[in-house]
Amino acid sequence: MSIETTVSRPVRGLETDLERYRGVREWTEHIREPLEVEDYVIQTMPDVSPIKWHLAHTTWFFETFLLRPFLAGYQASQPKFEYLFNSYYNSLGEQFSRPDRGTLSRPTVAEVVEYRRSVDAAMTQLCESDVLADPERRAIFELGLQHEQQHQELMLTDLKHVLAANILEPVYRSQDATTPAPAPLSFSEFDEGIREIGSTGEGFSFDHEGPRHRVLVPAFALANRLTTAGEYLEFIEDGGYENPQHWLSEGWSTVRREGWQAPLYWQREEPGWTHFTLSGRRAVDPHEPIAHLSYYEADAFATWAGKRLPTEFEWETAAADIEVAGRFALDGRVHPGPASGEGLQQMYGDVWEWTQSAYAAYPGYRPVEGALGEYNGKFMSGQMVLRGGSIATPADHLRASYRNFWPPATRFQFAGLRLAADR
Amino acid sequence: MSIETTVSRPVRGLETDLERYRGVREWTEHIREPLEVEDYVIQTMPDVSPIKWHLAHTTWFFETFLLRPFLAGYQASQPKFEYLFNSYYNSLGEQFSRPDRGTLSRPTVAEVVEYRRSVDAAMTQLCESDVLADPERRAIFELGLQHEQQHQELMLTDLKHVLAANILEPVYRSQDATTPAPAPLSFSEFDEGIREIGSTGEGFSFDHEGPRHRVLVPAFALANRLTTAGEYLEFIEDGGYENPQHWLSEGWSTVRREGWQAPLYWQREEPGWTHFTLSGRRAVDPHEPIAHLSYYEADAFATWAGKRLPTEFEWETAAADIEVAGRFALDGRVHPGPASGEGLQQMYGDVWEWTQSAYAAYPGYRPVEGALGEYNGKFMSGQMVLRGGSIATPADHLRASYRNFWPPATRFQFAGLRLAADR
Amino acid sequence: MSIETTVSRPVRGLETDLERYRGVREWTEHIREPLEVEDYVIQTMPDVSPIKWHLAHTTWFFETFLLRPFLAGYQASQPKFEYLFNSYYNSLGEQFSRPDRGTLSRPTVAEVVEYRRSVDAAMTQLCESDVLADPERRAIFELGLQHEQQHQELMLTDLKHVLAANILEPVYRSQDATTPAPAPLSFSEFDEGIREIGSTGEGFSFDHEGPRHRVLVPAFALANRLTTAGEYLEFIEDGGYENPQHWLSEGWSTVRREGWQAPLYWQREEPGWTHFTLSGRRAVDPHEPIAHLSYYEADAFATWAGKRLPTEFEWETAAADIEVAGRFALDGRVHPGPASGEGLQQMYGDVWEWTQSAYAAYPGYRPVEGALGEYNGKFMSGQMVLRGGSIATPADHLRASYRNFWPPATRFQFAGLRLAADR
Amino acid sequence: MSIETTVSRPVRGLETDLERYRGVREWTEHIREPLEVEDYVIQTMPDVSPIKWHLAHTTWFFETFLLRPFLAGYQASQPKFEYLFNSYYNSLGEQFSRPDRGTLSRPTVAEVVEYRRSVDAAMTQLCESDVLADPERRAIFELGLQHEQQHQELMLTDLKHVLAANILEPVYRSQDATTPAPAPLSFSEFDEGIREIGSTGEGFSFDHEGPRHRVLVPAFALANRLTTAGEYLEFIEDGGYENPQHWLSEGWSTVRREGWQAPLYWQREEPGWTHFTLSGRRAVDPHEPIAHLSYYEADAFATWAGKRLPTEFEWETAAADIEVAGRFALDGRVHPGPASGEGLQQMYGDVWEWTQSAYAAYPGYRPVEGALGEYNGKFMSGQMVLRGGSIATPADHLRASYRNFWPPATRFQFAGLRLAADR
Repeated sequence: MSIETTVSRPVRGLETDLERYRGVREWTEHIREPLEVEDYVIQTMPDVSPIKWHLAHTTWFFETFLLRPFLAGYQASQPKFEYLFNSYYNSLGEQFSRPDRGTLSRPTVAEVVEYRRSVDAAMTQLCESDVLADPERRAIFELGLQHEQQHQELMLTDLKHVLAANILEPVYRSQDATTPAPAPLSFSEFDEGIREIGSTGEGFSFDHEGPRHRVLVPAFALANRLTTAGEYLEFIEDGGYENPQHWLSEGWSTVRREGWQAPLYWQREEPGWTHFTLSGRRAVDPHEPIAHLSYYEADAFATWAGKRLPTEFEWETAAADIEVAGRFALDGRVHPGPASGEGLQQMYGDVWEWTQSAYAAYPGYRPVEGALGEYNGKFMSGQMVLRGGSIATPADHLRASYRNFWPPATRFQFAGLRLAADR
Repeated sequence: MSIETTVSRPVRGLETDLERYRGVREWTEHIREPLEVEDYVIQTMPDVSPIKWHLAHTTWFFETFLLRPFLAGYQASQPKFEYLFNSYYNSLGEQFSRPDRGTLSRPTVAEVVEYRRSVDAAMTQLCESDVLADPERRAIFELGLQHEQQHQELMLTDLKHVLAANILEPVYRSQDATTPAPAPLSFSEFDEGIREIGSTGEGFSFDHEGPRHRVLVPAFALANRLTTAGEYLEFIEDGGYENPQHWLSEGWSTVRREGWQAPLYWQREEPGWTHFTLSGRRAVDPHEPIAHLSYYEADAFATWAGKRLPTEFEWETAAADIEVAGRFALDGRVHPGPASGEGLQQMYGDVWEWTQSAYAAYPGYRPVEGALGEYNGKFMSGQMVLRGGSIATPADHLRASYRNFWPPATRFQFAGLRLAADR
Repeated sequence: MSIETTVSRPVRGLETDLERYRGVREWTEHIREPLEVEDYVIQTMPDVSPIKWHLAHTTWFFETFLLRPFLAGYQASQPKFEYLFNSYYNSLGEQFSRPDRGTLSRPTVAEVVEYRRSVDAAMTQLCESDVLADPERRAIFELGLQHEQQHQELMLTDLKHVLAANILEPVYRSQDATTPAPAPLSFSEFDEGIREIGSTGEGFSFDHEGPRHRVLVPAFALANRLTTAGEYLEFIEDGGYENPQHWLSEGWSTVRREGWQAPLYWQREEPGWTHFTLSGRRAVDPHEPIAHLSYYEADAFATWAGKRLPTEFEWETAAADIEVAGRFALDGRVHPGPASGEGLQQMYGDVWEWTQSAYAAYPGYRPVEGALGEYNGKFMSGQMVLRGGSIATPADHLRASYRNFWPPATRFQFAGLRLAADR
Repeated sequence: MSIETTVSRPVRGLETDLERYRGVREWTEHIREPLEVEDYVIQTMPDVSPIKWHLAHTTWFFETFLLRPFLAGYQASQPKFEYLFNSYYNSLGEQFSRPDRGTLSRPTVAEVVEYRRSVDAAMTQLCESDVLADPERRAIFELGLQHEQQHQELMLTDLKHVLAANILEPVYRSQDATTPAPAPLSFSEFDEGIREIGSTGEGFSFDHEGPRHRVLVPAFALANRLTTAGEYLEFIEDGGYENPQHWLSEGWSTVRREGWQAPLYWQREEPGWTHFTLSGRRAVDPHEPIAHLSYYEADAFATWAGKRLPTEFEWETAAADIEVAGRFALDGRVHPGPASGEGLQQMYGDVWEWTQSAYAAYPGYRPVEGALGEYNGKFMSGQMVLRGGSIATPADHLRASYRNFWPPATRFQFAGLRLAADR
C-alpha cells in the first residue's frame, strides 16, 4: 500500500491476542527508530512528555492493570516506576509532578527499553495463559492496546514540539512535499432528524462514546473537505489575527497574550510563510490542510468565513456511513496532504477536526469504578471535542463514534477544521 | 409584601419608558445607600470591579449606545470616560485594563454621581422625545435597563467580596438569620420528550436565549429544592475535599492549588463553621441553600451524592410552567433562605443553579452586528450555564429561558445547585 | 522663607517634646490636605501603601512602642489595628499581607483620623507626664517622630504613583515650572585620606549610621551639582536604553523585561518628552535634576558619561562640612528644581543620590534588642545606599551621616545622581 | 597523592601552552566520564545548564575569541553554534534563551564531542603557531583556560542538581563517608591595619581582582575552620528556620516562600537527616563542613551563633600568607570533608565561604573594552562575594585574591561559611 493512497483498517478478528499485542508494541518501536538518545529526554512544555516517558508509561499500564493483579508470581523489578510512570490515576496514589518529567535523566533510554522487554516477556506469558478468558480482563487488555495507540500519536506530536524548539531544525523522517490541488470547496446537506449517536457496541470503544442515544440534529451542511492552508492564509492576510471581531473573548485574549500571528510552527520569511514539519522546515503548501490550530483559531476562521464549526453530532451523522480510511502515519508519512476524490473527503486522518461541542457526558454516562474510571470522565470540563483522527493516529484506532478532546488553546496536535453551516 | 414571602414580577406594561428608566436607576441608588466612599474604590480581584466603576459603566452604556448616536446636540462632558468605562467592547476601541480598575482614585464617587445625574437628565430628554419610537433604538433602551440590572447583581456580589477581604468584617445590611427547616428532598420525574427551548419572543430576552428550537430531552428527575448547607456539610465531613474520586480533573487541581476546604467565605471555628455574609459573619445555617460554590464543587457534591447536575434543557423543561417568583434582594434582604412549600421550590431566586451544560450557541444563533454583538456570543467558550437567578438578582429580570454563565472556578456569585438524576 | 530659596534645619532645642510631636503630626495633616477620600485607599503596586495606611501606621507606632507599655491605664480602642498596621515587625506577631493593603475599605479615612486624634490625646498626656524622663523611652519617642517623617516622604511618593496611574492626571498641588539654567558641570577634588564616617552622636541618628569609624577613602572628584534632565536626555537620545554595553547585567534584563525607555513618569509626545509631576503632566525641563531613576539607570548613565557613581564614603566626606540646606517640600513645593550658586550644590534636597555602595553594616554594628531592632539591620541585603534627601523629605530630618536605602530597581522615589570620578 | 591529603597547586611554569591547554581539556573529559548520554541534556532550573552545553560553550569560547579572529583560514563548521553557545556576551549579538537550554536535544552529545575535537585540532595548530607570542592574545588564551576551569566546577554542581532531582538517586562517583572529628572551634585574632587588597600581578588573575589597593581593615577575629554540619544542625534543632529574628528580611521571606527547613539536598528521615551527594544519598556527617547554604542561611547561622560573616577584606588579610592547598576534586573525590591540623584550616577547598561583602568594583576598576569586558564587571549588583574555593574547584585555579560571587539565595553551589567576630 503506497503512502499516497488511503489506508483502511486491518481486520482485527484474524489476529490472536499476542499478535495484536506485538503489533501495537512494534509500531512504537517503528516510531522511535529514527531518534537519538537525547531526543527521548526533552520536555518543551508541561503538555509534552519525554519520549522515554511514553515508552515507560504505556508499559506501566500493562504492568499495573494486568501483570500485577493477574499474572501469578509477577514481581515488579523497579518499584519506583509505579510512582514515576503513573500519569494521573489518583486512585493509585501520588504521581511524579507532570511538568517535571523533563528533569529525569534516569532511568536511561536503555533501561526503559529493558523495562519494556521484561514486561513484554511477562505479557507473552499472560497472553498464553487463560487470564484473558475473563471478559473484564480482556477489556483491560484491549484498553491497554488502545492506550498505547493514543500515546503513539502523542509521541509524534510531542516529538514535533521538541524538534521544533531546536534551531537546528532536525528532520525526523523526510517526506516529499505534496502538490496536487484539492477539490473545490462544496457543502453536503443533511436534513433535520433524530440520530443515533455513540458507539454501536461492535468492537472496542471508550466508555465516553456511550451510551448510544438519540439526538435531534437540526438540518445542516458540511464541507466536502478540510480547510486548506491556502484558505487559512487568506484569513491571515485579511488581518484575521488583528481583528477582535472574529474571535471569542478567551481566544482574543490568548492571541494577545501569546502574540499569535499564525498557526503553531509557522514563520514569516521571504518570499513566504514556512512551517516546521517532522520532515524539517519547508514552505507552506496552500493545498494541504491547515494544521496546528487552536480551537480559538478554528472558530475565528469559521466566523470570518461566514460559516461555523460543526457540532460533534453533525460530524457523527455525516460520518455514519463512511468507511474509516484516510491518510495516516504509515511507511514514514508524517505530514497531512491534500484532499482528492468526490463526496465527503478526509473524514479520517490528516488532521483532527475541532467541533463546537464542549466535551461532556452523554445521557446516562457513568465512569467505571476504580482507577480505570479516571480514564475519560474526569476530563469533562474545559475541553472541546475533536473528531476524525490525524496523520499521527494509528490507522486502526478510529471509528465514527471516536471522541478526542483538548483544551481550546491547544495547538501542538495535528488539529484543523472542516466548515459547517446552517440550512 | 413581607421579605419572607415570595415576590413576583411587577407588571411592566403599565409603566412608561421614563418610569421604567427611573425605577431601574433608583434601585442602583438603593443598593449603594449604606456604603462609605472607601467601599466604592476597592478591587479585590480581577473579576471584581469597584462599585463606582459599576455606577459609571452602566451610565456609559446609555451614553454610548443612545445619547451619543441619537440625542440631537448631546455633548459628552468627559471624553476620557469613553475609554475608562468601556468594559470589553473592542468595536469601540481599546479599554482601560480590567485588573487595574482598582488603581483609579479619580473620578471620585461624587464625580461619578454627577455623571449619572447629567446622563439621567439627558435620558429624560430622550425618553420624552420620539427617539424610542424606532424599534431598534427601543431595543437598545431595553438592553440598557437589563444591563444595569445585571450590574446591580454584580454590585452586591463584588461588594461582598470587598467587605469579606476586610478583617473588620463590616455589615452591609443587617438581616435576621433564617431558621425553618426546608421540605425533605424529593425528586419530580419528567418523561422523555421533544421540548421547545429558548425565548418565546414575548417580552425582553437576550440574543443568546434564541432561536427557540426543539431538543430531544431524555427522561430525567429533578430535586424539589436547592441543596442545603447542611447537606453540603455532610460532604465536607465525609472528606469530600480530600478525595479526588469525586472531582473533575480540573476541579481537583484547583482544589489543591487554591487550598479549598469549604465554600468561599466559610471559616472553620469553634464550635462550628461560620461564613461571611452581607450581614456580617455568622454561623452557617444548615437549612439555607448552599451558596458560593464553583462548578467543580457543585459537580463533586452531586457525584458524591450519587446524582448529577441537570442540563440546562432539563432545567428549562421543568421551569416552563412555573411562575417567576422567589426570594430576591428586596427591602434589604441580602442572604438566601430555606425552601418552603410543595412541588418544585426555589426555581427562581436564592442562588443560581449550576447546570452541566457548557455555555454554547443555540442552533442558528448569530450575534447582532456591531458593538452590541459583543454582549454574549463572544463568551461562548470555557463557561458553564447557570439557571434560575439569585437573591442578588433584581426580581423582574428573570424568565425560564434566562441563561447566566460563568467560568467553572467562579465562587463569588451566589451560586449553588439542585440535584438531578437519570430515570 | 521663600520656596525658591534654600531651607535650613530649625533649631530643635527650643521646642518642648509636645511642641515637636505636634509639629511633626501637623505636617502630616498639611500633606493630606488636598486629597479626596478616594485618594487614600489605592495601592498601585506592592511597594506603595494607601495614604490612610500611612496615617494609621505612624499612629500605631506611637501606640505600640510608647502608649501600651508606658502610659498607665492606656486602652487600645481597636485591637485589630495592632495586626492591620504592623508593617514588618515579626517580633510583634504576624502582619496583614503587604500587597493586599489596597483591599481594605475599612477602617474609613474618618475612622483613621479619629484614631489619630485619640492617640494624639494620649500622647499629649504622655508628654505631659514624666514618662519621657527615662532616656530609653525618650529615644523611642524621638524614633517615633523620625519614623513619621520617613512616612511623610513616602506619602508623597506613593501618592505620586497613585495619581500617575490615573489617566485623568489629577493635580496634587500646582507649582510653577522652573526655568533658570544651572551652573556648568564641574568637579571638586578630594585627596586620599582616612575619614571619620558615621554619626557623630550629636542629635538623633538611626542605629545603622554608626558606629562612627575610620575609612581609608582614595582620592576622588565629585560633581558640583546633580545630573540634569537635559544631560540625561542626551543619554536617551544616544540610544542609552538600547545599548547593553552601558548596563549592569541585572539592569539590562530589567530594562528588557519592563520595557523601560525613559525614567518613570516620562512619556514621549510631540514635540518632546513630558512627565507626570505632583503638579500634573508637563514638559520635561532640561534644567531640573533628573529624578525617578533606578540604580541601574543612574549607573548606566554614569558609565555612558565616562564617570561613575560615588561611594557613600566619598559623599559623606564631601558633605562633612556643608550645611544641611536645600530645596524641600515646604509651602507647597512638590518638584525638584535647578541648582544655583557656587561650590558643591544640592547636596541636600531635590533628589536622593544613588551611591555605588551596597547597604551594609558598619564595623561593629549591632541592632538593638527587641522589635525596634528590626528597623534597619534586617534590610542589609540587596539594597543600595542613597544620600542627601529629596524634595519630599522633611527639611529637619537629614544630616551628613543619613543613609537611605532601596533595592536597585526602585524608581518611584525622587532619586537621581551626582557624578563622581577617580583622580 | 592520596585523596585524603591536601593538594597543592602544580607549578605552571614548566608546561608549554599546548600542554596546559590539553591538561585543562582532559580534566573536562575526566569529569564527564561516568555520565550517561541522558545526563548531558537536562536543565533542572534556569541557573543550571545542561552538561553538553558546558562542553560546547567552553569550546565556543576558544573558537570565538581566538580561532575566528587569529587563526588564519579558520572556518567555523557550525554557524548556529555562535548563537547557541554564547552565554551572555551582548557585544556578540543575541543569545539563545538561557532558561530554555534544556529544550535542545540537538546537537547530540556525540556532535558536541566532535565539535570539541575539531576545535582542539585547530587550537593545537594555534598553539604551535606564533599567535600567542602577542601578549594580548596570550591573555585571552589564559582566560580561556581559566574560563573552562570555572565551568568544570559548574559541571559538577549542575550535575549534582540534575541527579538530585531524580528519585532514583544515581551515584556519580562513589566515595567513602568521612569520619574523623575536626579540631575544636577557635579564633585567630588580627589587628587593625592598612592592608594591600587585590591581585599582586604575579600569575593570572581576573580583572575584578584589581587594582591592588589599600584598605583600612579594623581588628577582627576569624574561625580556625569551616562551620560543620553538626554545628549547623544545632541551629536547625534550635528552631533556626522558624525564628525570623535571626534572618535578614529578604532571607526570611525567601525561607517562607520556598519552604526551606534545612540546606539544599537535605531530607529529614528516621533516624536522622540524610543528604544527596554525588556519591548518592547518605546520612549527614556532623564532622564535615556544612554546604549548600544560601547567603541568607549563612548569615542567619552567624547571627544565631552571636558572630558574623567576615568581610572579603578580612578573609584576604588572613589568607595572605597561607599556601593554596586543600581538599579538591581530584582522583574522584566529590564531597567535602572535615578539617584537620592546626592554625587556619580549610582556607581553600571543601566549600566556598560566604562573606558579608557585596560584590563591587575595587577603586579604579575598569572592565576591558569589547566583549571580554562583559566577563565580571556587569555582574556587580545584587551578588555577594565568596572566597576560598570548593571541592569542585580545579586545584590550580585559586589564589588569595580570587573573588567568586553569587546572588544571596543561591544554594546549589558548594558554599558554606567560616565565622568571624569583632574584637
